[in-house]
Amino acid sequence: MAIDYSHTYAVIMAGGGGTRLWPVSRKERPKQLLPLLGQDTLFQSTVARLKNLFPPERILVVTVEEQAREMKLQAPEIPEENYLIEPAPRGTASVVGMAAMVLQKRDPHASMAVLPSDHFIRNVDLFHYLLKAAFEVADNGYLVTLGITPTAPSTAYGYIQQGIALDGEYKYPAYLVKSFKEKPDEQTAQQLLRSGDHSWNSGMFIWRADTIMNEINRQMPQLGAELKVIGEAWGTSKQNDVLNKRWLVLKNETVDYGVMEKAEQVAVLPAGGLGWSDVGMWSSMFEVLLPDMNGNIATNSSLHLAHETHNTLVYGGSMDRLIVTIGVDDMVIVDTGDALLVCKSDQSQKVKEVVEHLRKHRQDKFL
Amino acid sequence: MAIDYSHTYAVIMAGGGGTRLWPVSRKERPKQLLPLLGQDTLFQSTVARLKNLFPPERILVVTVEEQAREMKLQAPEIPEENYLIEPAPRGTASVVGMAAMVLQKRDPHASMAVLPSDHFIRNVDLFHYLLKAAFEVADNGYLVTLGITPTAPSTAYGYIQQGIALDGEYKYPAYLVKSFKEKPDEQTAQQLLRSGDHSWNSGMFIWRADTIMNEINRQMPQLGAELKVIGEAWGTSKQNDVLNKRWLVLKNETVDYGVMEKAEQVAVLPAGGLGWSDVGMWSSMFEVLLPDMNGNIATNSSLHLAHETHNTLVYGGSMDRLIVTIGVDDMVIVDTGDALLVCKSDQSQKVKEVVEHLRKHRQDKFL
Repeated sequence: MAIDYSHTYAVIMAGGGGTRLWPVSRKERPKQLLPLLGQDTLFQSTVARLKNLFPPERILVVTVEEQAREMKLQAPEIPEENYLIEPAPRGTASVVGMAAMVLQKRDPHASMAVLPSDHFIRNVDLFHYLLKAAFEVADNGYLVTLGITPTAPSTAYGYIQQGIALDGEYKYPAYLVKSFKEKPDEQTAQQLLRSGDHSWNSGMFIWRADTIMNEINRQMPQLGAELKVIGEAWGTSKQNDVLNKRWLVLKNETVDYGVMEKAEQVAVLPAGGLGWSDVGMWSSMFEVLLPDMNGNIATNSSLHLAHETHNTLVYGGSMDRLIVTIGVDDMVIVDTGDALLVCKSDQSQKVKEVVEHLRKHRQDKFL
Repeated sequence: MAIDYSHTYAVIMAGGGGTRLWPVSRKERPKQLLPLLGQDTLFQSTVARLKNLFPPERILVVTVEEQAREMKLQAPEIPEENYLIEPAPRGTASVVGMAAMVLQKRDPHASMAVLPSDHFIRNVDLFHYLLKAAFEVADNGYLVTLGITPTAPSTAYGYIQQGIALDGEYKYPAYLVKSFKEKPDEQTAQQLLRSGDHSWNSGMFIWRADTIMNEINRQMPQLGAELKVIGEAWGTSKQNDVLNKRWLVLKNETVDYGVMEKAEQVAVLPAGGLGWSDVGMWSSMFEVLLPDMNGNIATNSSLHLAHETHNTLVYGGSMDRLIVTIGVDDMVIVDTGDALLVCKSDQSQKVKEVVEHLRKHRQDKFL
């Protein structure tokens, strides 16, 4: 089934902050703008991963003003007008709606892949193949999600249950979605892993602009109405005034809850072997980077001397600072100028609680 | 049994370097000169602990030139002429011999307590009482050691086996030493702990100057002969020339091996409840400092935020640097300007191996 890929677009969502990679990611330095995994930032890697499939003029970025400046420096090949600015964070439903509205004005036949700015994907070829397959399914009016075949009973992701296989000659098997499930507890996660028909919700969505807009109008009529008003002013001298005014009244809602869960034609492509990680916490580094024979990882040119140390991540920032570990197992050590984190790997999701604690006690200089 | 304490002297030995408290102690900043346990340095605490028992003019310090300058600043109450300078480190036998020689010239009836400069003692009153008792025993011609009643099967100390109790009306029970034992392996240490008649060799010795000099002359005649030559020049214009020349030919030997093990009349006072620690490695801090209810210790005004953390020492140096631990148990974290140590508490003796490794690979800036 051949489709015209010249109407396909990538929409990178890059609004969020995230606190689980503290103390490297900070309020003013969100995760996607940091070179966490090497020389490139996660945002730059995301753009690079898309460039073979989409020319820069078909890559859009939706973000907030404070981040847009830095992103334009990091990815100058993306045209200025492709950076869409959220006046304030209002959840992914609004972001998706704005992007769909803008794309429909530019190209009535637009299809779009909505992609996070801060994920890691090892197998880019397979990723491209899956996106193409997903656009085929989307072309038939489905809201498509990429599901990630679980490799562990993770409680950090939502799950997607697949139903019957879709008819049609697609490049890759696609299934109707039977249900979306919220982040489960440990025991439920074990069951979902064993079930064989659940995959992780990666937050990657593929659909035609008109399909998603119809679903927004049906399920979130207020958002649909505001987007219509904003769309009418788009490209005129009133664009920013109207956007700023109308945006603030929007309800904060995710596209998952606001649209996907009750949408009519939702499909999932379950993907194994993608080498995907949301780089959601420090322990994710063990999925992404190659450890040495003792399971240790020293990132970011840190000087690490390991003595009877195993499965330990050392994230330092300087060749002038020596980090010695002795008798240390399964640990994450993150060393920055003003803060040091030492955390058992399997507890690294709790970094979030620490940041919350610092916020509550107004330790602003460490946030 | 009353003795004249006006002939008793304290000799503080402060030559060594020691590497097990790296990265805080360094080649140029040896342990005894550092404020490891609070505002005072270990050397200052040692002097303070002795001052109620000995006036400053009866406290001698034997050290090397590089350390003497700093010590005189830290303990200016000790008279200049009481600082004896080793031209080069030649082991504790030589140090003890030099101190005994100098004391004999000043006071033919001198008795001396030889004490390390870098130990911790919680119960100073008991310490004073024991020293007085030890001087009584020493007055009868014994070489006396303070033994520490073991509280764990430590492999870090030599052990002293006590024999029959000494006759005599002493303030405190004293025993003939049956044998000295080198640092044992784990299994032997367990046996020694259970035996009930072994104590740790604390490196604290009490004797008359003439007793130790006689033993040196008998067992280490070369040292005795050199000390005689040095002694003849002492106080003359040739003192330093002769000292420097003769010192260098001395054999490097400890007083334990060179004298104590084969001496004729050796006694031990086994001391429990002294609250003694040699502060020999980072895990010693747990013996010395008061932990919080989770067993954690944050020293030296470090800013520590503990989350599900137990029995962990955080030694930082700055209120501008936040140290966060999550899910960490039984760990030692030492954070300095150019080096960070993360070490399982029960492995902290291995810090020595790391320093050796750095030395071998010429990482001088971290030594």
